[in-house]
This record gives sequence, C-alpha cells and structure tokens, in this order.
Amino acid sequence: MKLLEQVNFNDKGLVPAVIVDAKSGQVLTLCYMNDESLRTTLETGRIHVFRRSKGCIMLKGGTSGHIQTVKDVRVDCADNSLLFKVEQEVAACHEGYFTCYFRRYLHESDEFEVVEERVFDPKEVY
Amino acid sequence: MKLLEQVNFNDKGLVPAVIVDAKSGQVLTLCYMNDESLRTTLETGRIHVFRRSKGCIMLKGGTSGHIQTVKDVRVDCADNSLLFKVEQEVAACHEGYFTCYFRRYLHESDEFEVVEERVFDPKEVY
Repeated sequence: MKLLEQVNFNDKGLVPAVIVDAKSGQVLTLCYMNDESLRTTLETGRIHVFRRSKGCIMLKGGTSGHIQTVKDVRVDCADNSLLFKVEQEVAACHEGYFTCYFRRYLHESDEFEVVEERVFDPKEVY
Repeated sequence: MKLLEQVNFNDKGLVPAVIVDAKSGQVLTLCYMNDESLRTTLETGRIHVFRRSKGCIMLKGGTSGHIQTVKDVRVDCADNSLLFKVEQEVAACHEGYFTCYFRRYLHESDEFEVVEERVFDPKEVY
C-alpha cells in the first residue's frame, strides 16, 4: 500500500491522524497510528488506533460500540499526518461528547467552558 | 495562563494543534507548539508554531503573509492536543492549496489524487 510506504512515521513509529465527522465536518479527535493500525484501518474501513498508554492497537469504539467508519482518507503536503473523514457511531469522546474538543479556552478570562452538549452518560456505557 | 499549565506537552516539549478554517470548518493543517509558541499565539491572536526542522518558533504565514488569526481555542478531553479555529489569509499550504490535506488516498486503487484547487502559485509567493 503506497500510503504505508509514503507516510512519515515519527521516531516512535507513529503518525498523527485527525478524525473528522464526514457529515458535519466537525473535528472529533486526534489519534496516533503505527504501521499496523494504519494498515488495519485501511483494510477494515474502521479506525484502529495505536493506544500509546497500552502499547497496542485497538479498534476505536471497540468497548463502547462507538466505531468510526472511514469515508475519506487524506495525507498532508509533507506526508507527516493523516486526515480521516468518518461516519461516527453515537459519539467520539469517552466523556460522552460528540467531539473530544468540547472545552473552549477563553484567553481574556483565562477560563475553560464546556461548549458542547453531552450525548451519552459514560457511566452507562463503560 | 491556565491553558499553558494544563496542557500536556510531550517528551519533546510539544503539543499538536489542529488548525481549522473558522468559516468553512475545513481542516487546514496540523502543527506543533511549544510553551513559548502557544503563549505567543494566545497573546498575539496569531498562530505561531514550533518549526521542528529549524528548532525555533515562527509566525505561521510570516514569509507569505498568509497568517492565521485565532477565533476559537479548544482543548481535547485528555489535554493532549489543541484545536484552533482561525481566519485564514489566502491559503494555509505552502504548495498553494487552501488546506494541506489536498491529496486523497484511495485504498481500492492504491493511488493518490489531488482533490483541491490551487489558490496561488508558490513560485510567485516564496
């Protein structure tokens, strides 16, 4: 697969991947893929990430059922990062929000605020 | 600034930042910020990146004039990455495209295709 040959994995063997909701265009999360998880993602059409804390590849949404089906794959101009447009099942964030970027930082007040609606209750899913 | 205290810089002192066009919602690029470039970005309202190849902070668009003015700042659920919505001057990519993700990878044919229009001629700008 040309993408696997061409992409620049970093010194830990990982490439960052921006995950975007194909319908709304909203950025859902940023994850990391190694050679194996990128290959599995392409072959299955489901996002598989390299979970750095566990040192293994995992189907995104494998526990919750909130899987991400790949609709479009992009590579940046320098082959340093990937962009996947996906069909998101329920929500991307384990805290119950559609996107992991549910907190806004306001420089003026030096405060964070939650600006998205909760879609599910994490206690009932995990 | 709470954001600077809270965000997890990696072992190289960097945090990845997804840059999105505030108007269209299109993902423009992925960059890296260190403590100093994040502080400068917040204080000036202009994206400043840590250029890993040069080891210094740079105003994004400093050469081309294609600066990015910050409209919205988000942090992910794990404090591991940032999302900036910006007003993009002209285009984000040094190759002349509005977004750095102008190439699509097709798994079926194992080919790349350019799927965006060129906005400017790099030879005339750099």
